Amino acid sequence: MSLPELADCVLDHIAIAVKSIPTAKKVYEDMGLKFAPEIEEVKDQKVFTAFAHVDTNAHIELLQPTSEESTIHKFIETKGEGIHHLCFKVPDVKAKTAELTAKGYKFIYPEPRIGAGGCLVNFMHPKSTGGVLIELSQRPE
Amino acid sequence: MSLPELADCVLDHIAIAVKSIPTAKKVYEDMGLKFAPEIEEVKDQKVFTAFAHVDTNAHIELLQPTSEESTIHKFIETKGEGIHHLCFKVPDVKAKTAELTAKGYKFIYPEPRIGAGGCLVNFMHPKSTGGVLIELSQRPE
Repeated sequence: MSLPELADCVLDHIAIAVKSIPTAKKVYEDMGLKFAPEIEEVKDQKVFTAFAHVDTNAHIELLQPTSEESTIHKFIETKGEGIHHLCFKVPDVKAKTAELTAKGYKFIYPEPRIGAGGCLVNFMHPKSTGGVLIELSQRPE
Repeated sequence: MSLPELADCVLDHIAIAVKSIPTAKKVYEDMGLKFAPEIEEVKDQKVFTAFAHVDTNAHIELLQPTSEESTIHKFIETKGEGIHHLCFKVPDVKAKTAELTAKGYKFIYPEPRIGAGGCLVNFMHPKSTGGVLIELSQRPE
């Protein structure tokens, strides 16, 4: 099978909702992945995060809630631990939000917001995408 | 944050269970991804598949059941459309199965099997991994 060249929409991360980063990290380390030593807190999202590279751009992002107010806590309560969302890097998230909204796709935010690492992000609603919560992210300049 | 170098366990694909490949494909194409033109049938798994590159190695694999007997059909009936599993390439899936089984991880198959494209594959049970069905795959020589 001949795959087309990589588009300018590239996988950035697979976010996995977990109860405990140390417990979840051990699974992926046992498989052979290597995590960055830092556990970062994203206060806005009320989560701790840990990252491991899984391809040139893509990484696994483990998300552990720091509060019962966190959407990640609610996700785990409802669905259990597991994959929470996919994130793709795009060159211009504002333009992409407008373009996809015009095509009928639903977004969580009306306008992109500043997310972790200063990225500009928005989320396509799973009802729009066939069951997958998809984050679109643009790196800060 | 400084990420360690890529391990020898690399993301191969994110498999997404869908009712209709043409409908699902349109979502990812609208986002900017490019699919290979071929729709392949994997008779053993009773699915049609479509692939798009999302990073150097990694791709999105859309899985549409061809029969009500397909595990993908049952997955969609129970949980709805969405991410079904993650697949990682490893150098030696038989050795990795033995190593992880010895550490207490549960696998779907006692021994790796030949899967699509002649790859040798096995699946770590989601109960072992914190809610994620993880395929380990070794390319044919």
